Amino acid sequence: MLPQKRPAEDLTSTAMEQKIAEQPALANGVNGHTNGVNGHANGTNGASTLPGLDASKLIITRADPTARAVPDEATACSGNETICTDHMITVPWKASSGWSAPELKPYGPLSLMPTASVLHYATECFEGLKAYRGHDGRLRLFRPDLNAKRMLMSTLRISLPGFDPAELEKLILALMAVDGPKWLPRTRPGSYLYLRPAVIGTQPQLGVQAPKEALLFITASFMPRMDSPPGGLRLHTNPEDMIRAWVGGFGYAKVGANYGPSLLATNEARERGFGQILWLYGPEGYCTEAGASNFFVVWRTREEEGGKLQLVTAPLDDKLILDGVTRRSVVELARERLAGDLEMVERKYTIDEVIAADKEGRLVEAFAAGTAFFICPVSQIRHRDYDVHIPMVKGESGQYTAKIKSWISDIMYGNEQHPWGVVVEEQQ
Amino acid sequence: MLPQKRPAEDLTSTAMEQKIAEQPALANGVNGHTNGVNGHANGTNGASTLPGLDASKLIITRADPTARAVPDEATACSGNETICTDHMITVPWKASSGWSAPELKPYGPLSLMPTASVLHYATECFEGLKAYRGHDGRLRLFRPDLNAKRMLMSTLRISLPGFDPAELEKLILALMAVDGPKWLPRTRPGSYLYLRPAVIGTQPQLGVQAPKEALLFITASFMPRMDSPPGGLRLHTNPEDMIRAWVGGFGYAKVGANYGPSLLATNEARERGFGQILWLYGPEGYCTEAGASNFFVVWRTREEEGGKLQLVTAPLDDKLILDGVTRRSVVELARERLAGDLEMVERKYTIDEVIAADKEGRLVEAFAAGTAFFICPVSQIRHRDYDVHIPMVKGESGQYTAKIKSWISDIMYGNEQHPWGVVVEEQQ
Repeated sequence: MLPQKRPAEDLTSTAMEQKIAEQPALANGVNGHTNGVNGHANGTNGASTLPGLDASKLIITRADPTARAVPDEATACSGNETICTDHMITVPWKASSGWSAPELKPYGPLSLMPTASVLHYATECFEGLKAYRGHDGRLRLFRPDLNAKRMLMSTLRISLPGFDPAELEKLILALMAVDGPKWLPRTRPGSYLYLRPAVIGTQPQLGVQAPKEALLFITASFMPRMDSPPGGLRLHTNPEDMIRAWVGGFGYAKVGANYGPSLLATNEARERGFGQILWLYGPEGYCTEAGASNFFVVWRTREEEGGKLQLVTAPLDDKLILDGVTRRSVVELARERLAGDLEMVERKYTIDEVIAADKEGRLVEAFAAGTAFFICPVSQIRHRDYDVHIPMVKGESGQYTAKIKSWISDIMYGNEQHPWGVVVEEQQ
Repeated sequence: MLPQKRPAEDLTSTAMEQKIAEQPALANGVNGHTNGVNGHANGTNGASTLPGLDASKLIITRADPTARAVPDEATACSGNETICTDHMITVPWKASSGWSAPELKPYGPLSLMPTASVLHYATECFEGLKAYRGHDGRLRLFRPDLNAKRMLMSTLRISLPGFDPAELEKLILALMAVDGPKWLPRTRPGSYLYLRPAVIGTQPQLGVQAPKEALLFITASFMPRMDSPPGGLRLHTNPEDMIRAWVGGFGYAKVGANYGPSLLATNEARERGFGQILWLYGPEGYCTEAGASNFFVVWRTREEEGGKLQLVTAPLDDKLILDGVTRRSVVELARERLAGDLEMVERKYTIDEVIAADKEGRLVEAFAAGTAFFICPVSQIRHRDYDVHIPMVKGESGQYTAKIKSWISDIMYGNEQHPWGVVVEEQQ
């Protein structure tokens, strides 16, 4: 008989809830200091004396600032390779020694053994956020605390080591403090860089197990603007035999495993001239996500239901969809600033409801919302043989879509001073 | 309006079936020569003049054969790092130029950009098979054609480039021809090495898209024996809020995305003294896989149902489970050699049926079957508060489990000359 550290009946309770309860930053919704290995799924529970993630230990090794010129945005985004800034941050972790000191160093390749966990078992998760060069000359992140907390949640879900999200946020700021001035020059207000924190399992051991070695890294790069495809974004619902996420799965976590398997259907859609898949769920055909973005519709309810204007998006409670930072911001701004115009509704809704609204002339707008696509107007949804065509003002957007987009954009680029816009103190 | 290369209604048909139809090796069940890029999900359809995977182009760069000594099995398996042989095979692929010439070269790290697709989007798949040093002194693989074909299927599912599986099989043989004599010496009959072919997306570009660059690689390494845990393998059913795979998902493909997300539940089970999760599916609680292995039970049906002895395992048709090579071999051998003793049944069956059989004294044996765990007797299944205890002969196995295991083992190690045992022509 092997040892049983916990009563067996606990296994049927939510393992993630337990992990999260061990992480004050997630459990309390505040960035309390968390021991770096508390939440690790290798069975390291409770207090540990191993070092946690600590941004104050950052070791800086600078690249030659004259070695690379900053390309213009169009050139940078034209190739098959992402152009990163001069530096990246890397932080190794080992189960036996905790988190090492973070390093900010010249951008370059990672060396991984062919047996590294991430290459076989998808022990990987990431975040995406942007740094914005404001029209007031200042450099801002948009609600980076939310990305940092979500990355901790994704990390725990994929059995990688926990950390204090406040320390991750500091590291993101540190990278931008160094690379911001050169790569997002004040001469380019309204431009942005894409920040990609990630954690990968690096232990060079085959066998399906939680990795005992990991690497956290952060890059900053160019990324093309995707928020205004000509004529709007065209969506195709997923093939009936291919769904993105499921109840009891991990659709809510930003883990690699949600993305690779979605590519087959997405490519099929692209070959047919559509931009993204509208992922439906279950025999009811609940609308969940548009590609890797959240999805919103504006419709008017039927007369007998009050004829109310509603902004509708899928709920978070069944853990099928990502708790998007842009999604959350849209929901909050709509409640705060559009309360007189429309009702913000988070509920399950089906593609048949969208089609019915279209047929009855009640469908007003639709858009995808996410960091990469920002607020991207949707002009068409094809579901089997039916085409939903969505009105676009001046061929560009609906009015509520445009309003919400401009509010968020104003916060990002400093036209509106708002607590969501976190200013980076740049090293000049 | 963007171009539509195919009629839109095709999207709702099975994208994978279409990909497979483009691959003669899979569609016809024979190893016909396939153009290496036909099945690639980047939209490269039909005939292509780009080079396919071609083992005859193999470039060999030998390691210093005296640089590393071969450890004994126990030492090799005692650490936190997989010990590989002197060489590995790597084959780069680009959408623009097809498959490069394969290289057999000294084992060592891979260099990947931090933006490489595999590190973010789980564009990765793998295979696992073993090379066996026979009691007759010869070196054998076990049904490597099945692994090669399955890897093609997994590769297509995860939007990586297609290839001729016969060429992959030749490359696996080539690696063993070079490293077999030293690393599986004739002085160690009954020992094996673990072979790990994998394909990963290497394109250094962020953004959710099928990679335009990939790398196929093959390693050979030690792997601990897992087929005889003391007292038998103890399984715990999965938490109700955590399932492994789902209809419309990718549970049948050997892609990284099936593994990382399973670790959280597996670790929870291990902390409670269980070896693996028995993954149930749906509200009915259908038994699917045991950890990353297939799962079999032997039971006797009720008297009113004939009181027949049956060997039962989950079916492949709903694509929830892996089409295991060991699973297939068990099914085929049971039909061929145990027809007088028991009935081989592939059907959906629930944990409640297993529990009922246990309560009524009809449960005879259970085992996990896979390359890593081989045929591993299961002694216990805990489901919520109920413990199924499975009889073990001499504390080791049930009699049918032992019989099947010895038959397959005899083929692997050359005690029985059989077409499933493919002899490696070693370079001496």
